[in-house]
Amino acid sequence: MKVTAICPGSYDPPTNGHVDILSRCVLMYERVVAAVVVNPSKTALFSLDERMDFLRELVPGIEVRSFSGLLVDAATEWSAQVIVKGLRGAADFEYEQQMAHMNRHLTGVDTVFVPSSPELMFVSSSLVKEVSALGGDVSSLVPGIIHDAMKERHVG
Amino acid sequence: MKVTAICPGSYDPPTNGHVDILSRCVLMYERVVAAVVVNPSKTALFSLDERMDFLRELVPGIEVRSFSGLLVDAATEWSAQVIVKGLRGAADFEYEQQMAHMNRHLTGVDTVFVPSSPELMFVSSSLVKEVSALGGDVSSLVPGIIHDAMKERHVG
Amino acid sequence: MKVTAICPGSYDPPTNGHVDILSRCVLMYERVVAAVVVNPSKTALFSLDERMDFLRELVPGIEVRSFSGLLVDAATEWSAQVIVKGLRGAADFEYEQQMAHMNRHLTGVDTVFVPSSPELMFVSSSLVKEVSALGGDVSSLVPGIIHDAMKERHVG
Amino acid sequence: MKVTAICPGSYDPPTNGHVDILSRCVLMYERVVAAVVVNPSKTALFSLDERMDFLRELVPGIEVRSFSGLLVDAATEWSAQVIVKGLRGAADFEYEQQMAHMNRHLTGVDTVFVPSSPELMFVSSSLVKEVSALGGDVSSLVPGIIHDAMKERHVG
Amino acid sequence: MKVTAICPGSYDPPTNGHVDILSRCVLMYERVVAAVVVNPSKTALFSLDERMDFLRELVPGIEVRSFSGLLVDAATEWSAQVIVKGLRGAADFEYEQQMAHMNRHLTGVDTVFVPSSPELMFVSSSLVKEVSALGGDVSSLVPGIIHDAMKERHVG
Amino acid sequence: MKVTAICPGSYDPPTNGHVDILSRCVLMYERVVAAVVVNPSKTALFSLDERMDFLRELVPGIEVRSFSGLLVDAATEWSAQVIVKGLRGAADFEYEQQMAHMNRHLTGVDTVFVPSSPELMFVSSSLVKEVSALGGDVSSLVPGIIHDAMKERHVG
Repeated sequence: MKVTAICPGSYDPPTNGHVDILSRCVLMYERVVAAVVVNPSKTALFSLDERMDFLRELVPGIEVRSFSGLLVDAATEWSAQVIVKGLRGAADFEYEQQMAHMNRHLTGVDTVFVPSSPELMFVSSSLVKEVSALGGDVSSLVPGIIHDAMKERHVG
Repeated sequence: MKVTAICPGSYDPPTNGHVDILSRCVLMYERVVAAVVVNPSKTALFSLDERMDFLRELVPGIEVRSFSGLLVDAATEWSAQVIVKGLRGAADFEYEQQMAHMNRHLTGVDTVFVPSSPELMFVSSSLVKEVSALGGDVSSLVPGIIHDAMKERHVG
Repeated sequence: MKVTAICPGSYDPPTNGHVDILSRCVLMYERVVAAVVVNPSKTALFSLDERMDFLRELVPGIEVRSFSGLLVDAATEWSAQVIVKGLRGAADFEYEQQMAHMNRHLTGVDTVFVPSSPELMFVSSSLVKEVSALGGDVSSLVPGIIHDAMKERHVG
Repeated sequence: MKVTAICPGSYDPPTNGHVDILSRCVLMYERVVAAVVVNPSKTALFSLDERMDFLRELVPGIEVRSFSGLLVDAATEWSAQVIVKGLRGAADFEYEQQMAHMNRHLTGVDTVFVPSSPELMFVSSSLVKEVSALGGDVSSLVPGIIHDAMKERHVG
Repeated sequence: MKVTAICPGSYDPPTNGHVDILSRCVLMYERVVAAVVVNPSKTALFSLDERMDFLRELVPGIEVRSFSGLLVDAATEWSAQVIVKGLRGAADFEYEQQMAHMNRHLTGVDTVFVPSSPELMFVSSSLVKEVSALGGDVSSLVPGIIHDAMKERHVG
Repeated sequence: MKVTAICPGSYDPPTNGHVDILSRCVLMYERVVAAVVVNPSKTALFSLDERMDFLRELVPGIEVRSFSGLLVDAATEWSAQVIVKGLRGAADFEYEQQMAHMNRHLTGVDTVFVPSSPELMFVSSSLVKEVSALGGDVSSLVPGIIHDAMKERHVG
């Protein structure tokens, strides 16, 4: 048996929190797919291709794919048995538990939760973008290539 | 890479909730070890050997071992990379998150959380024993062999 | 004393979760009113009349009414003493507790909470619509007449 | 249909929080039974008879009964359809949700939750006893007859 | 050492909850600054100047300032060492904990949390505005001058 | 006005988490009192005097005192206006909120909460003792003098 785990997200942009979860997954699953959500109704800071390139560069040993529609359909298509979600706190858990039950109900694909590393529990893409747009220094919260790219967009 | 996952617990007795988590682990990890805690300061309903035999009979395809001392030392000895814990709710998460950070801090062994199946989220060994001791029917909450064994002990 | 309980909601559409809570209310209160919120600023999948007809067909023995403005004003007009809300988790509780205190402060009408049946705790109208719009099968999460109606709208 | 609601507890002693929940239940249910748990393994400040007499005096219009064994068996014997529990916060909810699911699973008897009045959310029998034993003034947290009785026991 | 505490918020409008937290801060810190957020993307009921004037009138002994951009930059400019946030419940805590860690990470400025007075835990500016717009009486939830001003705007 | 803050605890032993909270308090309050609880019914690893000496050595600039009975009585005697409690998570908050309301009700003394530094959120005296007793290395979780003292007691 070769277990495939999917790590879904917007990754707009990938933060040190994402890199932490993905790197730990590589030690726990034989095949790890970072699955970037295509969400046309949301304005993204970086294009889908940029985000996928970032991920490929940041976490060696994973596959990077995109999906639209239901995550569980992508899971089936990619022969993945497990969805992995990082959890920063109890509030995250409540929401993700609901999604996990729904996903398992729909196709049987299971979900496991990985607790954020404590020193990264306050890092999220949206907060990083918000802080950065207001002039805050986020250089220690995102990888160097992300920080450079944010500065080029005048948000870093 | 062959990933080994440990599922620690008292398993006194194993419930349908335990069987659910262990069976799902078998689909997610190549090698699954149910690790029964030896806790001399706690009075158990079933002996260590009984609990280990129950688990072997209930969940084919897992290893059953016991440990005393630190779980992370057992993990190291057994070459396990991951601890798996079932979560019934947000309160469970808060406590388990603390233990997960401590365990990772001590030896680097990581922890993932698996959400209880919704229909089993109210089932725990301690509540099953309490209800059963007061005369409640727990036959649909524990496997048949456990129910029979509890009746023999006059608590089922 | 004849106690009237109100179960407010958007019911867009009613799910198996709604039917569960309403049916249990019928066993706990002499008169149960499903109160459908009129919210002009929100785009609904089904019209107010459709939603009210669904509820009348799905749960025999309840009254179905609509209200705009404050729920507590509707409660007073309909001589209702109790608001009933389903709770899926602790996060729901925090929000609903605030609303309950506000409602009791305004007119004295009290609120009680009914915990969702475990196997339905991941079912909500919004998640059902989202999953369905992405092609997921929600036939076991909503009543048959709702599923048919969603298919006609091309979201089922 | 005449609905009977049970309000279980140790009531050792009844606090203003208990009186608040019981009084609100009287407005929501035709028949309200305060069910005092008989727990021989716990040392109580007041005897079972004293606690039952306190409740009868404090909340007119309720029945006061005692039970040992399973609450749901008492519910069946007393023809009660509903268990009512006060909730002080989200942590209470998590625990009580588990008990509610278990009780409904065992006999079908349902549970509803009533949120504590905000100004009483920090009042519990155990905290009142602890504070009082250390010399704190709890006269505004318990009814007058309870305060007098605690002083006679040298804990008020 | 003279410690300065900042109490940030939209204060649109100040409620009895805000007055409670600010008044308690005056007893805990030598210099208290109510910091009104300038948020051009949000439509406010009252102008920035009105909100600042309300605060000056309602809580003697505090400074009232406005800020745009990062709160921690304002904190540095005003020589403030501490951010103070009121907490109404555990859900508030999860969110504010994340912000507190981010703010401390950015500039070292620390955050403390003050629990809302129990009888005000359901009061927020947004809920007060919502209730008031639907015709509910909020006269006991906001100071008199706020209630008068809301009535003039036809929302009180 | 010179504000005095009390930081109560068992401090058996002081951990890096305690030192973190106390050191941050020194920057926020003019006078900080570490208040060591005298609890004869609990067996401590270190004597009261040892714990007080540890605190004096570990955090310069604070006062170290002991108290039995109600914390609020000690607060009054020491002219303290504020109790400071560290919070590791939402579950801590629920419990501490109840104690804060009780303490303010009793004497008016207020409580503020300080969030644990993320990297220390899994550190508590009891977990440190438990891990250490089982042979785990806690040298990075407690100050050096504590680690040495624990080793002398054969628990480090």
